[in-house]
Amino acid sequence: MDEESETTATAAASWAKRAWELLSMVRHRAPLVQCITNLVSMDLAANVLLAAGASPAMVHAIQEIDDFTPNVDSLCVNVGTLAESWIPSMRAAAATAERARRPWVLDPVAVSASEWRMGTCLGLVELRPTVIRGNASEILALSSACRIRDAKGADSSHESTDAVEAAKSLAQSSGAIVAVSGAVDFVTDGQKVVGASNGVPMMQRITATGCAVTALIAAFVAVDPSNALEATSCALSIFGLAGELGMEMAKGPASLRMHMIDALHCLDENTVVSRIRISQRS
Amino acid sequence: MDEESETTATAAASWAKRAWELLSMVRHRAPLVQCITNLVSMDLAANVLLAAGASPAMVHAIQEIDDFTPNVDSLCVNVGTLAESWIPSMRAAAATAERARRPWVLDPVAVSASEWRMGTCLGLVELRPTVIRGNASEILALSSACRIRDAKGADSSHESTDAVEAAKSLAQSSGAIVAVSGAVDFVTDGQKVVGASNGVPMMQRITATGCAVTALIAAFVAVDPSNALEATSCALSIFGLAGELGMEMAKGPASLRMHMIDALHCLDENTVVSRIRISQRS
Amino acid sequence: MDEESETTATAAASWAKRAWELLSMVRHRAPLVQCITNLVSMDLAANVLLAAGASPAMVHAIQEIDDFTPNVDSLCVNVGTLAESWIPSMRAAAATAERARRPWVLDPVAVSASEWRMGTCLGLVELRPTVIRGNASEILALSSACRIRDAKGADSSHESTDAVEAAKSLAQSSGAIVAVSGAVDFVTDGQKVVGASNGVPMMQRITATGCAVTALIAAFVAVDPSNALEATSCALSIFGLAGELGMEMAKGPASLRMHMIDALHCLDENTVVSRIRISQRS
Repeated sequence: MDEESETTATAAASWAKRAWELLSMVRHRAPLVQCITNLVSMDLAANVLLAAGASPAMVHAIQEIDDFTPNVDSLCVNVGTLAESWIPSMRAAAATAERARRPWVLDPVAVSASEWRMGTCLGLVELRPTVIRGNASEILALSSACRIRDAKGADSSHESTDAVEAAKSLAQSSGAIVAVSGAVDFVTDGQKVVGASNGVPMMQRITATGCAVTALIAAFVAVDPSNALEATSCALSIFGLAGELGMEMAKGPASLRMHMIDALHCLDENTVVSRIRISQRS
Repeated sequence: MDEESETTATAAASWAKRAWELLSMVRHRAPLVQCITNLVSMDLAANVLLAAGASPAMVHAIQEIDDFTPNVDSLCVNVGTLAESWIPSMRAAAATAERARRPWVLDPVAVSASEWRMGTCLGLVELRPTVIRGNASEILALSSACRIRDAKGADSSHESTDAVEAAKSLAQSSGAIVAVSGAVDFVTDGQKVVGASNGVPMMQRITATGCAVTALIAAFVAVDPSNALEATSCALSIFGLAGELGMEMAKGPASLRMHMIDALHCLDENTVVSRIRISQRS
Repeated sequence: MDEESETTATAAASWAKRAWELLSMVRHRAPLVQCITNLVSMDLAANVLLAAGASPAMVHAIQEIDDFTPNVDSLCVNVGTLAESWIPSMRAAAATAERARRPWVLDPVAVSASEWRMGTCLGLVELRPTVIRGNASEILALSSACRIRDAKGADSSHESTDAVEAAKSLAQSSGAIVAVSGAVDFVTDGQKVVGASNGVPMMQRITATGCAVTALIAAFVAVDPSNALEATSCALSIFGLAGELGMEMAKGPASLRMHMIDALHCLDENTVVSRIRISQRS
């Protein structure tokens, strides 16, 4: 093994060890993750959080933010199935989390679906999310803050590599860690770029997997808020690894969903350390 | 084989071939299907659409209809868990779809639950859905536009055969293709009646299977809008066939749900061609 | 066998027989159970009701209460994902059920999340629910009507045994049967305390299992409203037994969810009679 590949191997082992540490912390501390998330994703997001050892709380009434949000460990805001009545709660919860120094994560689902949704997301970005996660189309659109003509609903029509520069730019302008999901997930703080390459394509054939991994990021960031880039990368790879393990048993997207959640619940140190694939790209 | 049964066999083979063609088109084109659907059905409807190869978009805010709906390939409107705040979106989306010449499908879930729900459905029927799909109780009630005393929630207390005449009448008055789900699903344009007889009884023990097949009809009609009677019949039979295949592995309704979605994802030409059971009844 | 243990064994057999009778009645009568329940639980609650043989109806619009609620066999009100717009419907449905002499069940999910939620629950308790079911934290909080500092979202941080006295007190003040879920579920009318000890810990790693069993209680109470303490105890044990049977096949929480629902659908007399564990504690 030459020097460079030895360094690479050491770095990869270090990332895998970090992923295991963070998962163990989630299991041990059971962070309370408030989710203001879309109607399609509630079941999957809650079950993924529970399988990872976190404690989900789907609380979105404006009347509860003042009492509840200061006590959570992190917040996940997801604009899928956006309704006007939810926006004040999203904004109040984000502002409360910021004041209480709790990390919060934004998922700008289908941000190009309408100007109204784009405006809502831009307003949320101003409230300084700790992390923004989307697919390539969403991050490209949010970064350029303009409509992409061929965007189709919540499914991505771009590769995640296309969006790396846009993600860096969005990270710089927003101050957030930005994650772009795809065949390889890219995570950036505006300078560094980390690639997380676990996962299987069939996960895209299960509704709300993107929303669920955003919720999982919120759980990971909750236990190590000062290292959000690492926590985000690890959450993405852990979720992808659960998908890989699930795929070994799956016969289609519905059994993949089941086996993926089971696998997330059962992940052990050996599997994580030997199979997590995260590396710094720049 | 005498002449008549030979003709019947040829017609059946032709229907099965058509079902395979339409499923292939859905997989190839991945139509974007906007769903304004009830809270119970969102997960199943989205996963069924994804398993069939379509791209679901659960978008229901009135603020997004003008931007979003003209770009969809079809629209599914489902009145289960109806709330007053959703009705303007349903109406605006239906009107927009009509103007943009996109097919749209109405599911009048539990239309007899209240006069208010019946009134809402009658108002939606006036916006000229391409297809209306319900169970026998729903189609009977909507057709006569009056309450059925023994209707129980969203579950049917009538056989689909009872409702064939009501369906023809509703098709004639509304201009829609009308589908009645049951042991045999009947589909009519007001003159012709087609029977689709795939499926297993246990599918009724899974919540939102009716809603999910309505969403699937929207995907099929999206790829062949000028032949909505055929597309509807094929979607119903394809979904029923997925249920039959799922039933071969299932031990109860929850495993049926999983295997059914997996089977829909995995359907191949041989299986479709040999097992689809559609025939013209009159 | 001495006399006392013989009496105990006879009592246990009698409870198991009762559980089977009630499940059989649910399957035979298919009670229509209206659920005004939270967004996370809708899918699971509906599927659990269907697997038990009941007929779920997720109807929550205020416009439908007058027409619909008098025709239901029971009502389930669950305050998870509470929104202001749903409260009038919850109150109107509860009052209508009371007037129509239909039993109704309250699930005060995460009642300590905010003062507003506590106030809403206290207002609902005044409308005289037939049964209140919660975890230990929720029952303790509701009983003392004051905030518990260490309550975390919807997950319990107390053992069910802690809450037995609080449950008795709440039962006395409210007139409701009160059930506390935990390792052992306790059910009380304010005097008698019954323990139902079926179930497995992993059920807590599936979102909305608490909400689902509350819905199941509504189905059981619907078929024997004059014996709500018995019906509640039996519903809790039947659900727990389904979890035990599911656990024999499960590899994690997602497969447990599936096998549990399948098991509930398939439960037979022998299994129920030999494995239900209910006993009077005081």
